[in-house]
Amino acid sequence: MRPFRYLLLLPLLATTTLTMAQDKKLFTLDDLIPGGSTYYSHTPSRKYVTWWGDYCVELDLDKVGIIDNKTGQNTTLFTLDEINSILQTTTPLRSLYYASFPYADKSQVMIQHLGKQMLVDWKDKSIVWSVVNSPSATNTDFEPQSKNTAYTKDHNLYVQTSDGQVTQVSDDGCLDIVYGESVHRNEFGIEKGTFWSPKGNKLAFYRMDQSMVTTYPQVDISTRCATMVPDKYPMAGETSHKVQVGIYSPQTHGKIYLQTDDPTNRYFTNIAWSPDERKVYLIELNRDQNHAQLIRYDAETGKKEAVLFEEHNDKYVEPLHPIVFLPWDSDKFIYQTRRDGYNHLYLYNTDGKLLKQLTSGKFEVTELLGFNTKLKQVVYASNENDPIGISLWSVGMNSKRKALGETQGYHYPELSANGNYAIDRYSSPTQPYNIDLVNVADGKKVNIHQAEDPWKDYKVPEMKVGTVKAADGVTDLYYRLILPTDFDPNKKYPAVVYVYGGPHAHNIDASRNWGARGWDLWMAQNGYVMFCLDNRGSEHRGLEFEQATFRHLGVEEMKDQLKGVEYLKSLPYVDAERLGVHGWSFGGFMTTSLMTTYPEVFKVGVAGGPVIDWKYYEVMYGERYMDTPQTNPDGYAETSLLNKAQNLKGRLLIIYGGNDNTCVPQHSLSFIRACIDAGTHPDLFVYPGDEHNMMGTDRVHLHEHITRYFEDFLK
Amino acid sequence: MRPFRYLLLLPLLATTTLTMAQDKKLFTLDDLIPGGSTYYSHTPSRKYVTWWGDYCVELDLDKVGIIDNKTGQNTTLFTLDEINSILQTTTPLRSLYYASFPYADKSQVMIQHLGKQMLVDWKDKSIVWSVVNSPSATNTDFEPQSKNTAYTKDHNLYVQTSDGQVTQVSDDGCLDIVYGESVHRNEFGIEKGTFWSPKGNKLAFYRMDQSMVTTYPQVDISTRCATMVPDKYPMAGETSHKVQVGIYSPQTHGKIYLQTDDPTNRYFTNIAWSPDERKVYLIELNRDQNHAQLIRYDAETGKKEAVLFEEHNDKYVEPLHPIVFLPWDSDKFIYQTRRDGYNHLYLYNTDGKLLKQLTSGKFEVTELLGFNTKLKQVVYASNENDPIGISLWSVGMNSKRKALGETQGYHYPELSANGNYAIDRYSSPTQPYNIDLVNVADGKKVNIHQAEDPWKDYKVPEMKVGTVKAADGVTDLYYRLILPTDFDPNKKYPAVVYVYGGPHAHNIDASRNWGARGWDLWMAQNGYVMFCLDNRGSEHRGLEFEQATFRHLGVEEMKDQLKGVEYLKSLPYVDAERLGVHGWSFGGFMTTSLMTTYPEVFKVGVAGGPVIDWKYYEVMYGERYMDTPQTNPDGYAETSLLNKAQNLKGRLLIIYGGNDNTCVPQHSLSFIRACIDAGTHPDLFVYPGDEHNMMGTDRVHLHEHITRYFEDFLK
Repeated sequence: MRPFRYLLLLPLLATTTLTMAQDKKLFTLDDLIPGGSTYYSHTPSRKYVTWWGDYCVELDLDKVGIIDNKTGQNTTLFTLDEINSILQTTTPLRSLYYASFPYADKSQVMIQHLGKQMLVDWKDKSIVWSVVNSPSATNTDFEPQSKNTAYTKDHNLYVQTSDGQVTQVSDDGCLDIVYGESVHRNEFGIEKGTFWSPKGNKLAFYRMDQSMVTTYPQVDISTRCATMVPDKYPMAGETSHKVQVGIYSPQTHGKIYLQTDDPTNRYFTNIAWSPDERKVYLIELNRDQNHAQLIRYDAETGKKEAVLFEEHNDKYVEPLHPIVFLPWDSDKFIYQTRRDGYNHLYLYNTDGKLLKQLTSGKFEVTELLGFNTKLKQVVYASNENDPIGISLWSVGMNSKRKALGETQGYHYPELSANGNYAIDRYSSPTQPYNIDLVNVADGKKVNIHQAEDPWKDYKVPEMKVGTVKAADGVTDLYYRLILPTDFDPNKKYPAVVYVYGGPHAHNIDASRNWGARGWDLWMAQNGYVMFCLDNRGSEHRGLEFEQATFRHLGVEEMKDQLKGVEYLKSLPYVDAERLGVHGWSFGGFMTTSLMTTYPEVFKVGVAGGPVIDWKYYEVMYGERYMDTPQTNPDGYAETSLLNKAQNLKGRLLIIYGGNDNTCVPQHSLSFIRACIDAGTHPDLFVYPGDEHNMMGTDRVHLHEHITRYFEDFLK
Repeated sequence: MRPFRYLLLLPLLATTTLTMAQDKKLFTLDDLIPGGSTYYSHTPSRKYVTWWGDYCVELDLDKVGIIDNKTGQNTTLFTLDEINSILQTTTPLRSLYYASFPYADKSQVMIQHLGKQMLVDWKDKSIVWSVVNSPSATNTDFEPQSKNTAYTKDHNLYVQTSDGQVTQVSDDGCLDIVYGESVHRNEFGIEKGTFWSPKGNKLAFYRMDQSMVTTYPQVDISTRCATMVPDKYPMAGETSHKVQVGIYSPQTHGKIYLQTDDPTNRYFTNIAWSPDERKVYLIELNRDQNHAQLIRYDAETGKKEAVLFEEHNDKYVEPLHPIVFLPWDSDKFIYQTRRDGYNHLYLYNTDGKLLKQLTSGKFEVTELLGFNTKLKQVVYASNENDPIGISLWSVGMNSKRKALGETQGYHYPELSANGNYAIDRYSSPTQPYNIDLVNVADGKKVNIHQAEDPWKDYKVPEMKVGTVKAADGVTDLYYRLILPTDFDPNKKYPAVVYVYGGPHAHNIDASRNWGARGWDLWMAQNGYVMFCLDNRGSEHRGLEFEQATFRHLGVEEMKDQLKGVEYLKSLPYVDAERLGVHGWSFGGFMTTSLMTTYPEVFKVGVAGGPVIDWKYYEVMYGERYMDTPQTNPDGYAETSLLNKAQNLKGRLLIIYGGNDNTCVPQHSLSFIRACIDAGTHPDLFVYPGDEHNMMGTDRVHLHEHITRYFEDFLK
């Protein structure tokens, strides 16, 4: 369910303003929903910065400036006019927003212009290098040292070397056999299918044979006569694809495949290169996902050299991070695992020996950002400071951790190549959007951007965050409560619970508006109390918290949500007879589950892109949490909403993308069929042509539609 | 749109009872909707009768009786026990409801039992003949003289001769090439693909090559992983299929094809045999459907012998009836045409010479039932007596017409083989369901069944029929008005217009309840005024009435419907602010058209299985009325609801069968997409797995759903 996660993280960055002044403005839905015509003018202002070595440079439409690490002052490096006078093309380059600076020690900027990729030296005023981009290339992967580019076209893999020569690496690519694309449905942290060695001399790539996987028939209604668009979709318990890892050498045109174990029902994840480009490391996993092995292969011969170590968990192990070698010691690497209950950094050597657990404690390392080579420190992000925040940290080889820069709020830091500085982008409930430059050595920060509150003239509803105890009676769960605009404590308001509830996501955090979505505010403005709670099973709270849901997704999650509802009902201004619930994807599953499991609690629900029966969901994500329909028939039966269709009492609107290839339409349609057979009456809406999430103006339409449903039946 | 028509004609036969007594019962929806658990106990009682020569026999579970032509008295012919004692099978035959009597002069009954077709002589007490039915045979076509059976299996044609031997007539049958099945999508009166010669010595059959036709991807969600079910569906203006007519001789196993003109864009319709089995007559039509030819072929050689005559119409000609030879003169036949504006019977000879127009007048011959050989009369049904009734008539070769039997009401007569008697099934607003035996010679009738009013203990709302002037200011249009149960003339009621409006169908007739549907009564009981009007374009009112809609379907029809609405609004008890509209298929098109063309008139609409753009409808029906998108771009643009999506103001629920292969899902989904793009908000519901109409319990669920929508938004 990664596509959803992406959306979830679309940052809504600004500050919470508690104001009731009568002269303030009201929002339109377009102001609040991504895709709305006035959305961007209602988001905090941005500054586009990137790294050139240890220099932070600011990208502007017509110039690039260099920012002083100490003062934050911007000095122009070059202008768009200067670049265009070098390019001498009849059609000028229009913007420098997409410029990049791959070489710390060179005054060279990389740009894309008129179908070419070019390096321009702004000091020498010359075009240093250029190649013609291959038309219709996808999955483009440029390696700056070698200037080699890997890309795919029609499921085949191609490599363009720095001289512009193109070699077709595979020739039998098709829907059934794909090269150079992401595999295993983007699970296990996999987001791409090509992996350049550190100096770009070799390319590791995925090959996936999915000829044995069932084809889900998606239908394109936009053609003159509707056409079938086949999508290979392996469903839980069904035959899965087979993946191989190939190694291609642009110099020799040699191509080999790693001599792995039988790829049937095996996952090949987290590809990493040794610094000398001679070895490839994979984390391999059995289909049951309870046994992982870190394995080293010889990149020349493809031979399996060693299983460095293994991990086992009775429920599941989920490797998400390739190993990363220390820049100052090519025999040692960092490995991330939740084996002690939280995701932490471990130092290993290439014999597979554990040298040290670098971080530990009841918090999660959320990202390994890189290394400060000078200080021999690892720089990372974690929620140690606040379970619902993220901030910047370093840790030395002695396991001494240090908080860096601003520690409050929710941060997306980006480290410079040598790790001396970090660009620290963040927001908090009181800060709409800031960027600091942080000196890793001393942790000191210089602010280089502070966005004004874009909502200062608006009536922003009051938002609160707190905790309630989970259904286990022990665990603290975070909730967010939003009061209706112009709140009157003596009134009774309808309340809507927004829910996601699945793994790898959260809804409440220490960012702008406590992570509230624009629609939450819209509903508050329309007179609803909005409530949201991150139940057990959601992210950043450790392994036990997540694994409480194992083999019966939804069951514990619902119990926790009801604890939230209990609290909600205890509020004197909440009308317990008018409770609604809305969620998308896993949240659509939760919504439908809640409506049919606790039909007396919720009067109205809107479930988007829901999972209805985990047997229709895909192998990788689904079996991790549910095992297979064959090995866990009771769990599948208990959680299948096909078996609960007869319980529906309230008003439930199911919405899905007509071409959803994440939660395929079979989910929603099977539920509708089950309700018809049971004599119950859900409502339905479809966004033809859309996939798992509605984007652009469709997203505005969607939220109008959802709102209307609550207005029709909950108000 | 034939499948809809079938449903439309599901007879709801009983009498209108005008009663307001407070102690009477109220209906449940199950009482009123076919498929409802209590539906059949609320329909008029039936009697199952059929012909054995000139004898009317009554089929019962456990016996067959013969009915006296004069007295109507039933004398048992044989019992089920007697038949079972002849059969001597361990599993006895369970019912005689499906018995038939193919031979007038023999005491033989045809039954199907334990996978066999058998003829049992109830006097000789012997099994006279039996063959084993071919398993999984479809389109079975038995010819009683020869006892040959034609059938299809996996799109191939087979013939089983009376000795049980099976010959496979074709071997390349597949989805692309089909044999022995109905062609041209059941238009032009075509309902089957095999046509035995009069004595069963030869078989004419259709072969259709549809390899060049686009495949509509229907999706079956009931399989483990959804699967694509390809459906060859030729859309208006697109490449159509090619049809041939073959002749097969079971004696010689010879097979030839008629040497027709190029079958590209040509329709081969209304296959008829000459009495001597030597000639085959087709009515052939160009793709534009404005030029028909009656053509004779030699059945031995396949050679085209003669074009007997032609018909042309600037709009369209629509041959629906094969020629029928006079039983007493094999050189003369009856041809039906609306060339004078109404469907009438014409006598021709085999030279193609018109001998006489047998019927004429401003009424329609609705069915040629057969001949009375003795009197040399044609027996037919027509609406001469009442434009909204149908009754039984005969006409002699001198064109003298005579009304037979009961003339009031709506009749479904069935003539005996020699035409001496007719079984006359009918109902009227005062007669729930009657069966008379009519003597064709003198027109006298004997009643053999009179159903009691099954609703006598119920509160049946008041129903009225009348006429208003069409938008042309001249034509009378019939409407039906149903008042709410417990009607109070001083109240203001919401009103719902039920609409079909397309060709080949009507809604108001002189049958039980004036043709009202069960849902109309349900709505009346729920407090709605129900209104229905048969606009220009509907059936039984002549060619000009129908062709008013040519090349811009919906436009004139809507103008007429608004005349009905004008009348409806003039009624003091109708709340003009609460008007709804509902229709299915063409009626779904009308509903959506009305909601988006006259958004100020209707507040709520429910459109089922709608046509949204005629370019998505099929070639045969669509091009007859609309020509092609290429030749009539303005007409297609004017009537496309994709262009009116932005006009939607009221609440419109679109419902369709998830596997509708008549109005394919592309219609509804394209409209939803257009509305999303236009920022308007229809509602939607889908019946997964259902085709163009919901049957059984789905039909009850459907009408609950439709009702709920009006209750939600119109009340």
